[in-house]
Amino acid sequence: MSAELLFRLSALNTAYAAAIDSDRLEVWPDFFVEDCLYKVTTAANHADGLAAGVIYADSRGMLMDRIAALRKANIYEPQAYRHLIGMPSILGHDAAGIHCETPFFVARIMRDGATTLFATGRYLDCLRDDGALRFVERIVVCDSSRFDTLLAIPL
Amino acid sequence: MSAELLFRLSALNTAYAAAIDSDRLEVWPDFFVEDCLYKVTTAANHADGLAAGVIYADSRGMLMDRIAALRKANIYEPQAYRHLIGMPSILGHDAAGIHCETPFFVARIMRDGATTLFATGRYLDCLRDDGALRFVERIVVCDSSRFDTLLAIPL
Amino acid sequence: MSAELLFRLSALNTAYAAAIDSDRLEVWPDFFVEDCLYKVTTAANHADGLAAGVIYADSRGMLMDRIAALRKANIYEPQAYRHLIGMPSILGHDAAGIHCETPFFVARIMRDGATTLFATGRYLDCLRDDGALRFVERIVVCDSSRFDTLLAIPL
Repeated sequence: MSAELLFRLSALNTAYAAAIDSDRLEVWPDFFVEDCLYKVTTAANHADGLAAGVIYADSRGMLMDRIAALRKANIYEPQAYRHLIGMPSILGHDAAGIHCETPFFVARIMRDGATTLFATGRYLDCLRDDGALRFVERIVVCDSSRFDTLLAIPL
Repeated sequence: MSAELLFRLSALNTAYAAAIDSDRLEVWPDFFVEDCLYKVTTAANHADGLAAGVIYADSRGMLMDRIAALRKANIYEPQAYRHLIGMPSILGHDAAGIHCETPFFVARIMRDGATTLFATGRYLDCLRDDGALRFVERIVVCDSSRFDTLLAIPL
Repeated sequence: MSAELLFRLSALNTAYAAAIDSDRLEVWPDFFVEDCLYKVTTAANHADGLAAGVIYADSRGMLMDRIAALRKANIYEPQAYRHLIGMPSILGHDAAGIHCETPFFVARIMRDGATTLFATGRYLDCLRDDGALRFVERIVVCDSSRFDTLLAIPL
């Protein structure tokens, strides 16, 4: 485990969160390789081995479609979000890439100013390093099984 | 981007937060250069380009005055605060210094023990590195537009 | 202060949190040396110099007993927890080890999905470095004085 790699992973997560929280959603798919897997699921479903996920996309094109749909549906998004992402645990390397697990908190800020802890969980990631780090796989395992507008924004 | 610099920035933020949360407010101005800018504003005002800010100080002396006033007004401060600051994104360097953006959460703990997520947002910083890193500019952009006692403590 | 050490400390905290939050509680005592001190206390009691603590264990065996008791009492644990741990401030080194202070947030996720900010505070740590870093002492200073089921899980 190198401090340098941990820092690059942490910087990637920081940039990822800033893109979402600053509503620069169109750059979000660029954090993934073309042939990626992005999934949002719950801790309960993940523990039961259910592959489905609440949100499921298996190409960068699907991520782009998702953002386009979101822009059409929510022209005036009334909420804002703020991610706080912990340091990654590097679990190992193999032919697929670098595997790591990273905890996160997401706050939601309503238009009236009310702030709540919206989601907590962990990212289970596999990353490819071609000079830049990109997600081959990002499984977002949410601790809570409640999904209301959680479906709206990327996590 | 060097891992070393990211670490020094992160260590600075950790020390900054610990000073506030441990009520060692008198050392807070020392994190800034003499000729600094400290501003607390909202995401909405910042997006609209409003320069004013809810709190505004353009010298270290003003920061010291602020703490002195706060000590006089709130002799028995009933709340405590806890910052959790994410890793900085280094945005660039120029003649003014190092520019970065850093997300934060602040919890408030009432005297009866109730804990709430008090504020979330991001720091937009410019730092000078003279051996020690100091803030030339720290713009605190709060996600929420609600400010109650938010005015009381430094963020 | 070296970036490398900060990273190792941060990686340790990440692994510590992941063990608790993934309910791998049996590995939790392994983060401590045999002859350790683990204590959970409140900011108010800590400031008053009260040594007692709400939870107190002065050997790794006591930590193991604690987990065994917890497993017996709470066969079906209805809550989940998520730690988010900030970067450590290294305070110094002496014969006892490396001293540092680290802020944390812990969220609690109820079975019905409700998520709340359960505890905030700081770890006051002393660590020994024998190739691997282990806690000689971990004092968990909670900001809030409210302890309900806080007694159940390690913090």
